[in-house]
Amino acid sequence: MIAMAEPASAYLQLEENCARLSAISGAVATLHWDSAVIMPQGGNEARAEQLATLGVISHEILTRPEMGALLDEAEARGDTLDSWQRANLREMRNRWRHATAVSPDLVAAHSRATSRCEMIWRTARLENDFAALRPSLEDVVTLTREIAAAKSAAFGIAPYDALLDEYEPGCRTSVIDPLFTELEGFLPDFLQAALERQKAAPPVLRPEGPFDLLVQKDLGLTFMTALGFDFEHGRLDVSHHPFTGGIPDDVRLTTRYESDDFTQSLMGTLHETGHALYEQGLPKRWRSQPVGLARGMALHESQSLLIEMQLSRSADFLSFALPKIRAAFGGSGPAWETDNILRLYQKVEPGFIRVDADEVTYPLHVILRYRLETAMLSGDLPVADLPAAWNSGMRQALGLTPPSDRLGCLQDIHWPGGAIGYFPTYTLGALAAAQIFAAAGRALVDLPAQVRRGEFAPLLAWLRENIHAHGSCRSTDEILHAATGAPLGVAAFKAHLRARYL
Amino acid sequence: MIAMAEPASAYLQLEENCARLSAISGAVATLHWDSAVIMPQGGNEARAEQLATLGVISHEILTRPEMGALLDEAEARGDTLDSWQRANLREMRNRWRHATAVSPDLVAAHSRATSRCEMIWRTARLENDFAALRPSLEDVVTLTREIAAAKSAAFGIAPYDALLDEYEPGCRTSVIDPLFTELEGFLPDFLQAALERQKAAPPVLRPEGPFDLLVQKDLGLTFMTALGFDFEHGRLDVSHHPFTGGIPDDVRLTTRYESDDFTQSLMGTLHETGHALYEQGLPKRWRSQPVGLARGMALHESQSLLIEMQLSRSADFLSFALPKIRAAFGGSGPAWETDNILRLYQKVEPGFIRVDADEVTYPLHVILRYRLETAMLSGDLPVADLPAAWNSGMRQALGLTPPSDRLGCLQDIHWPGGAIGYFPTYTLGALAAAQIFAAAGRALVDLPAQVRRGEFAPLLAWLRENIHAHGSCRSTDEILHAATGAPLGVAAFKAHLRARYL
Repeated sequence: MIAMAEPASAYLQLEENCARLSAISGAVATLHWDSAVIMPQGGNEARAEQLATLGVISHEILTRPEMGALLDEAEARGDTLDSWQRANLREMRNRWRHATAVSPDLVAAHSRATSRCEMIWRTARLENDFAALRPSLEDVVTLTREIAAAKSAAFGIAPYDALLDEYEPGCRTSVIDPLFTELEGFLPDFLQAALERQKAAPPVLRPEGPFDLLVQKDLGLTFMTALGFDFEHGRLDVSHHPFTGGIPDDVRLTTRYESDDFTQSLMGTLHETGHALYEQGLPKRWRSQPVGLARGMALHESQSLLIEMQLSRSADFLSFALPKIRAAFGGSGPAWETDNILRLYQKVEPGFIRVDADEVTYPLHVILRYRLETAMLSGDLPVADLPAAWNSGMRQALGLTPPSDRLGCLQDIHWPGGAIGYFPTYTLGALAAAQIFAAAGRALVDLPAQVRRGEFAPLLAWLRENIHAHGSCRSTDEILHAATGAPLGVAAFKAHLRARYL
Repeated sequence: MIAMAEPASAYLQLEENCARLSAISGAVATLHWDSAVIMPQGGNEARAEQLATLGVISHEILTRPEMGALLDEAEARGDTLDSWQRANLREMRNRWRHATAVSPDLVAAHSRATSRCEMIWRTARLENDFAALRPSLEDVVTLTREIAAAKSAAFGIAPYDALLDEYEPGCRTSVIDPLFTELEGFLPDFLQAALERQKAAPPVLRPEGPFDLLVQKDLGLTFMTALGFDFEHGRLDVSHHPFTGGIPDDVRLTTRYESDDFTQSLMGTLHETGHALYEQGLPKRWRSQPVGLARGMALHESQSLLIEMQLSRSADFLSFALPKIRAAFGGSGPAWETDNILRLYQKVEPGFIRVDADEVTYPLHVILRYRLETAMLSGDLPVADLPAAWNSGMRQALGLTPPSDRLGCLQDIHWPGGAIGYFPTYTLGALAAAQIFAAAGRALVDLPAQVRRGEFAPLLAWLRENIHAHGSCRSTDEILHAATGAPLGVAAFKAHLRARYL
């Protein structure tokens, strides 16, 4: 029957399947958010069952025997499709390749191993006990290696590239390596220069709290609204680890508040708002199809870092925001001066923890992880040797020796969760953010003045048109090229750092 | 292959399917709760897609061609199963019968018609416009009649009984009719006597607000905790229409607060707590199977009414609760005297709105709806004649003529939602609540004193053992018989009303 179906109908059947998958993944996204924000602990086991069941059902739909034939048939009649449909078909094929390259048993074994390892990791990190984590992390690395090998064989690309492709489709180490090498050449000297210059400036004062949590939340809402977040299609809540979840029609972003420091929650909220604006700006017509999804993790991170690092930590933004912040907390005195707050938000300081790092040292954290995870995947670095390799890498990159694995190789959930190939996207995102913001600045000559006045609509409209509205229709490379006139590079990021820190 | 499978394996395969269905329905329950409590309005359309998709997937799993054969085979080897497994198989068969009796097209048409009619009803009620509702309500009634006819043919029972069976499995009009007839004989005279006696008592004073909403919430939490609600496995939140949702491992109950009246939200919270305690008390071993679910809507309502009407509006309960309520709001003076609050919580007053009705007049509201919906289903009452029939019924039952359809036949969502056969369970639940509470009182001779001291553990333990822990293993009839020594009757309810109101 399939062989006789019209090509057009093959494509439409695929769209229908994808709409079903999209509805399931939307349900999954809401349940994930609920687990992090709402759910009482006793709901854990039942929730895990719900998520596992929906995962299995999705996988079954995606790997139904007829799917391959439908894809073949729709592709054979690609001339009957418009460019979005063709791109959609390409994305379907890519998801299908990822889903079918690996046996269901291996998927299930990997899923069980990562669930187990994540659970062990939570305790091991708290108790600074790498030895307790090691066996389960070895299982995860072994199974991830098997997945990488299977995908490598199926796609004809290197095993690590096959993992990268899950997070940033089309991305390869051949793209990453020259960028990271250039950063490694540039950053250490730059960091020293920035630290020297910082030393010469007045010391940074911290505004003294307590800062009412509801006032902090209101401020977050104020800036989200100013930036163009649509509260008809989203919410702001609290979770232990801030994240952006939900679906484009209902974006759930979270932050966390500390009563003695408003600065982190505020920048955290602005960071997540960048992710959220991307989701809300994805093409409405294609909401239920793969081509309507965000392009990849690098571009996603570029949008959060554009809002947080490029925009919100700038002097222009602070001249708009600081009066509102001062008024909200009734702040006055030297700690509340614009120059001081700017120095606070632009402080550079090598540290042990990636998520607390400033934008100068952050790439060095990421590059270290990239070197280590490629070595673990290839087998060159046994998991048992990870702590030593980590510490030696930290000494080399930042001149710091972690006093404990908790402040070292136990700090991130990514590897216990099986996410090898994810880390590079943070720094690719930082490079893209600088490049995109520079292009926006060239296109919107009045941008700095608009930012000082709190007018973000022109910037958002430019991002919508040049980034968000493309969904996954084009590759990251094509989107960046069209938006900035160049492929992803280090130049704009270097220029940004020089302008801000030297 | 199915024909050759071992019977034991047929049963186990069915259990596996049911576990999958349970995980999906758990996800659906959480998403429903989220829609009512959390979701921004713009998420509506996507959420409807998610719920529809999960509904279709559930239906597909339940009606797979092999299911009938698996059920046959497992039943043929019922001797290899224990009593819970056999009961589980019986429940599976019943769900399967309901799912397969109706064509998928009819299910889909009914679902679309009810979604549409519910939407129209929201506006029609606000605007008191029955004419606007009529056409879509006619569609719903017609399609519900088709479903009832299909199930009637498949099950060999009357059409209305086939609908009843969805909400209260095994319940039939032959059970309801004598009970309702007895109530109709008893209640009107009783109501007059209660009103007379009320007139002779001092007038009821309303404590004056405003009542801080957070204090109201804290009070609700205090009483929920005292009653034994497990917050490791549940939450209290706010929604426009209070309800109990979620799953037994994570029970989500909601209430709503008015700043000028704490009494309604408090009793609302206690009512939902009764539902929630039932859910939390269902057998843990059978959480993912049909036999582990609550028995039916009548027994469910019996648990909420037992906690609200039988327990919480009693003098014993108030002597425990009122000091805490007074302390929370700093209340003093005549309106806060125990006798006055008791009169407030036991006030009888015929009114137009079912959900605001006291326990004496409530059954009269329900019986009216029962008469009308059976007549609509049979075709004896055309939808167009509903307002007139409603108003004449209200005059007869309560001596009141609704001044508008908004206060008449437009007040409930049930019929627009296609829920014909649901209303009787409210009153069956009220009868069962009285009967069960009386039995608990006989078993726990110290109960009144325990209640006055705020010791609810013995009552909860008795309910757990005699009601909750049975899940759906026995029929409602068997559970009631074992717990109270008699089938469902009106005697305990009458005795309760006489003791409280005369």
